[in-house]
Amino acid sequence: MTVLTAPANRPRTEPGLEALFAPNAVAIIGASDDTRKYGNWIAVQALKGNRPVHLVNRSRATVLGRPTVPSVTAIGNQVDLAVIAVPAAAFEEAVDDALAAGARAIVGISAGLGEAGEDGLRVQARITAKVRAAGARLLGPNCLGVLDHTSGLTLTSNEFPVGNIGVISQSGNLALELATLLVDHGLGVSRFASLGNQADLEAADLIDAYIDHEGTAAIAVYCEDFRDGRRFARAAQRATEAGKPIVLLTVGATDASVRNAKSHTGAMVSSGIVVDAACRAAGIEQVSSPAQMAHLLQALVRSRVPRGSRTAVFADGGGQASVASDSAAAQGLDVIEFPPALQTAVAAELPSTAAVSNPVDVAGGGEQDIMCFPRVLDHLTSSPAVDATLMSGYFGGYGAYGQELAEREVDAARTMAALTAAHDGTVIVQTMNWTSAAANCLREGGVPVYRGIDEAAWVLGRLARRGSAPATGVPDQPVAAKAVSDTGYYASRRLLMAAGISFVAAHEVTDREELLARAAAMAFPLVLKALGDEHKSDRGGVILGIPDIPALLVAWDDVQHRLAPPSCSIEEMADLTQSVELLVGVRRDPRFGPIVLVGLGGVFAEVIRDVRCALAPVSTGQAKELLLSLRGSALLTGARGRIPVNLDAAADVVAGLSQLASAHPEIVEIECNPVAVAPGWAVALDARIVLG
Amino acid sequence: MTVLTAPANRPRTEPGLEALFAPNAVAIIGASDDTRKYGNWIAVQALKGNRPVHLVNRSRATVLGRPTVPSVTAIGNQVDLAVIAVPAAAFEEAVDDALAAGARAIVGISAGLGEAGEDGLRVQARITAKVRAAGARLLGPNCLGVLDHTSGLTLTSNEFPVGNIGVISQSGNLALELATLLVDHGLGVSRFASLGNQADLEAADLIDAYIDHEGTAAIAVYCEDFRDGRRFARAAQRATEAGKPIVLLTVGATDASVRNAKSHTGAMVSSGIVVDAACRAAGIEQVSSPAQMAHLLQALVRSRVPRGSRTAVFADGGGQASVASDSAAAQGLDVIEFPPALQTAVAAELPSTAAVSNPVDVAGGGEQDIMCFPRVLDHLTSSPAVDATLMSGYFGGYGAYGQELAEREVDAARTMAALTAAHDGTVIVQTMNWTSAAANCLREGGVPVYRGIDEAAWVLGRLARRGSAPATGVPDQPVAAKAVSDTGYYASRRLLMAAGISFVAAHEVTDREELLARAAAMAFPLVLKALGDEHKSDRGGVILGIPDIPALLVAWDDVQHRLAPPSCSIEEMADLTQSVELLVGVRRDPRFGPIVLVGLGGVFAEVIRDVRCALAPVSTGQAKELLLSLRGSALLTGARGRIPVNLDAAADVVAGLSQLASAHPEIVEIECNPVAVAPGWAVALDARIVLG
Repeated sequence: MTVLTAPANRPRTEPGLEALFAPNAVAIIGASDDTRKYGNWIAVQALKGNRPVHLVNRSRATVLGRPTVPSVTAIGNQVDLAVIAVPAAAFEEAVDDALAAGARAIVGISAGLGEAGEDGLRVQARITAKVRAAGARLLGPNCLGVLDHTSGLTLTSNEFPVGNIGVISQSGNLALELATLLVDHGLGVSRFASLGNQADLEAADLIDAYIDHEGTAAIAVYCEDFRDGRRFARAAQRATEAGKPIVLLTVGATDASVRNAKSHTGAMVSSGIVVDAACRAAGIEQVSSPAQMAHLLQALVRSRVPRGSRTAVFADGGGQASVASDSAAAQGLDVIEFPPALQTAVAAELPSTAAVSNPVDVAGGGEQDIMCFPRVLDHLTSSPAVDATLMSGYFGGYGAYGQELAEREVDAARTMAALTAAHDGTVIVQTMNWTSAAANCLREGGVPVYRGIDEAAWVLGRLARRGSAPATGVPDQPVAAKAVSDTGYYASRRLLMAAGISFVAAHEVTDREELLARAAAMAFPLVLKALGDEHKSDRGGVILGIPDIPALLVAWDDVQHRLAPPSCSIEEMADLTQSVELLVGVRRDPRFGPIVLVGLGGVFAEVIRDVRCALAPVSTGQAKELLLSLRGSALLTGARGRIPVNLDAAADVVAGLSQLASAHPEIVEIECNPVAVAPGWAVALDARIVLG
Repeated sequence: MTVLTAPANRPRTEPGLEALFAPNAVAIIGASDDTRKYGNWIAVQALKGNRPVHLVNRSRATVLGRPTVPSVTAIGNQVDLAVIAVPAAAFEEAVDDALAAGARAIVGISAGLGEAGEDGLRVQARITAKVRAAGARLLGPNCLGVLDHTSGLTLTSNEFPVGNIGVISQSGNLALELATLLVDHGLGVSRFASLGNQADLEAADLIDAYIDHEGTAAIAVYCEDFRDGRRFARAAQRATEAGKPIVLLTVGATDASVRNAKSHTGAMVSSGIVVDAACRAAGIEQVSSPAQMAHLLQALVRSRVPRGSRTAVFADGGGQASVASDSAAAQGLDVIEFPPALQTAVAAELPSTAAVSNPVDVAGGGEQDIMCFPRVLDHLTSSPAVDATLMSGYFGGYGAYGQELAEREVDAARTMAALTAAHDGTVIVQTMNWTSAAANCLREGGVPVYRGIDEAAWVLGRLARRGSAPATGVPDQPVAAKAVSDTGYYASRRLLMAAGISFVAAHEVTDREELLARAAAMAFPLVLKALGDEHKSDRGGVILGIPDIPALLVAWDDVQHRLAPPSCSIEEMADLTQSVELLVGVRRDPRFGPIVLVGLGGVFAEVIRDVRCALAPVSTGQAKELLLSLRGSALLTGARGRIPVNLDAAADVVAGLSQLASAHPEIVEIECNPVAVAPGWAVALDARIVLG
């Protein structure tokens, strides 16, 4: 048996993934002459390559004019990779055949398995177990193939443009759409893997394989189901750290998309707020469309991330200068007024009608002297007052006025790209002449060029945010202590107090006698809570501001009469006059594990949903950042003459709760609502735990 | 003297504007051989047309190989239109010459006048007065020309694609950029007028001229300065009512763009919130980039506005179905789950693997039978459960699989367009194959087609909003009563009370004796306010909750000692336990006149700016809509078990204040902050008036 040598530039990854992207030979089970079938489309593409391709078809002696074999085992030689495009009912037998022939990777095109219901899911699981037992890996099933331009492998229905973007997608059409958009930006694809149902190989495995792939500079992921979400996020964090940014498109903002993903790939979709949290932790750039994906990828592979958000706007039209300034500001960029020295320097390069305070409008200077563009850009990119430059307008169109100007414009572009690199600057260009020779020259020199100001400003805003808010890291979950089994109010309080969270003084009481004995030692006013009912507050089981013993007895009798609770809690009242109410909780997401949520309580919780979340556990520092990122955070930091509350104490509560919940996988939900935070302290006023 | 007949399709507008767009002949003063000058570029374009063009140049006998005349008067015949492209210093003399020769319209290309400072502004005003005295009209100066494809007039530096979009722009480059973007959508320009400094002709005049222009179906406006903003808004409302939607791009979201517009065209820029209010009143569609402008124009000229926001998503890829659903929801569209009958009907047209509950994913149905697209669309556009359909995916690409399929795909597209029209439906299409024959066929049949799902979903969201929130109308300002001169607190209260606004019982007191006499007849607790200082609250001049006479005297002495106010106000305290605080005010904008503002007070005013505004005056009904559009409006309507406040009473305060302020042009600012609104009533707790 001859084993062919794989191409030189192979990934330093496990054998199954090596076989997937750079196989010695390929078998296509279900190769077909029917031009409406994947078994035809993939065979056509595969045969264009240089490695041995075996067409497997039981009933036809030839396909595409070439002899077939009835099975992979009939080939005689070991074949690294088998693509299977047969009906679902024949899939398992085809896998058996491929494994028997020594395949180390299987690409399952066949649909109608895990996404088609319980029966299909059972068959898919059985097949996956067989593949793993054989030491092989399975991509799909219900996937659209695999492609690696560095190893010359195309096992997809369509060709893709060549480039340095690694694509991992749970949708074939979206990958195709992304590819057509990349071409606009002078980009293309290094590798493509279609995820399908992720029965074996998950997005995380493929990200790891792409990190090691020299031909890949950035990774585009479309994913409906993250499977082990923490594993996905850790792989993404490794990619980020390896300098291969991940741009992610996912779904789940609506019931409709969740409904559809279930039908499409059997996906369990995570909620948007949880995915956001994972992206912040791992440094993933999340986008909402293929176009955004392409726009951002261009910038990530060409441009550096700016130091800050102070932005120079540099245009050759007054209207475009203004629109670009507004667009930049809408993306959170700061179109500062230039310091006088910079204004003077820019003015010296331009006609007297030019605007030079920021935005810069060359005001006809381009027609008069095209080299004013690099001269001005030199000042902007070398100024310590400017973090990034957003160019907008007509550049690239002057060349249409004559051959000499055309050459000078390309010279100007070349100089601009060189200056940007020399000053380690961030320059994003929008021009209506985005396909011109000068625009291409900018791109080739590492300056991203866009057609529209919307996307140019948006991209620069994302780059600036990437610079100012780097990945916080995907946290490990602490090892569980003894499992929690009692979720009663007092058991919950004790657990939380052991985690360092303060509560008001309180006692559980079961009768009138105990009530009076406990109350005697407490500071009025008190609160009486009926226990044993999660919705005690809604049902009138919480009585606030009880001033004295007689009132306490009236309240007790009332609660006993109405609700007959198994026990009650009497609690001292915190002085809330200078406090702000927070809600703090942790929920266990089926994909991403424990997620800590913080929000403002009271009127904010009622009227606007002001909630932020993060992968748990978080440190006190991260908790503080989370609190400060609330829209209403000015309430915490001292709006209009309020005394700022103790943010550290609030952050300690958040961090403590997140640590506790992370260490207890049996806790699916834990919540302190509200936590009162005053200038001096933070105390929880309630606690609730739900076990899985 | 021979007067040539203007082309048949001439506007039914005033003679000056008739001459501007359909002149008998054209004189170009400053025509030049220098290819870097406007006088050259415009002459080159003008000479391509069929009407007489006279090149005027004092010092050269020929320009562009044609004989020149030294002045317009030297031509001998009357010339309707003179384009002037000479240095600023020679501009006035050129205008004199043109007027002497009988010109009824002048296009001022020359820069360095009104935008260049006080001196230039004076000269510009003098010239404008001369033009008007002669019964002529002036476009510009500092403009880039005029164009009318229906009359065959091109007096611009560049050619524009032909179509039915009327363009009015204060930036030449932005108009050019828009034109290149329109081409993507199969659209072009009917007329273009460059506004420049708007010394005489303003955007409003041009809108009126475009309303009467048969060749124009929709109007795109880029404007930095609205001049008489009410007049602009009224012209826009007329256009909206005439079925010619206005799409507006303006600037002013940032200091930088305001700075630049001032330098560009001497513009006074209105704040974004005021322009928003004008747009809502006039039915103007505001956008933030040329690309948005083009996207929306395609939909406005091709599609009908849907009845509501219930949206069917119809895709031929699972990923695209999900992404389109999320994109639609992000634009406020409602991707409802289909009623069972519609699901059944759709399922009958598609393979069993298709998703049919919404989104619809044809799941390979397209490859099998391209006619499934019109069959499904027939169900969607005829369903009473669906207001609009958003298609997304690959349609238009099937034709690449073979000639027969290509023809069938175009047939499918033609059928889809016909069905959309027959059912009076709204269908917006996104496809990665947006330039295909099938896509063009859809466009020709009146179905807008886009490349990206972002813009397709955004456009549909805008159409749905246009349907649900039609123009409220630009209000007339009531005739002023006697001018206000006393802005003291009690004078302001009286004025507002006369306008129907309730205040708490209160008395002005100047000494202790008067204080005691007045207080004796009032209901405690009381409030004591030191008058004579606008910032009384910040300086401790407002003492709340005074329980009785002794406390009142302590408060009085304290205030006298600290602030020595000329007088004080003692006021009963409203019972605020169930009330919400609003701030209500009117400010006079230099361009758009009185603008009414409403916002939530208290914590909302402090932490999030929750303010809405409208052109004043507003009716009670409009005021109610304004209040309900606040982000925190749930506080008013009864969030989480609160008793709803009396919205009608609150709206009466807003309407009354807006009427009052509108009738008094001398009032530049008037404010009641706060107005307390309870379930039973609304009372103003303070009043403040600022005169101009």
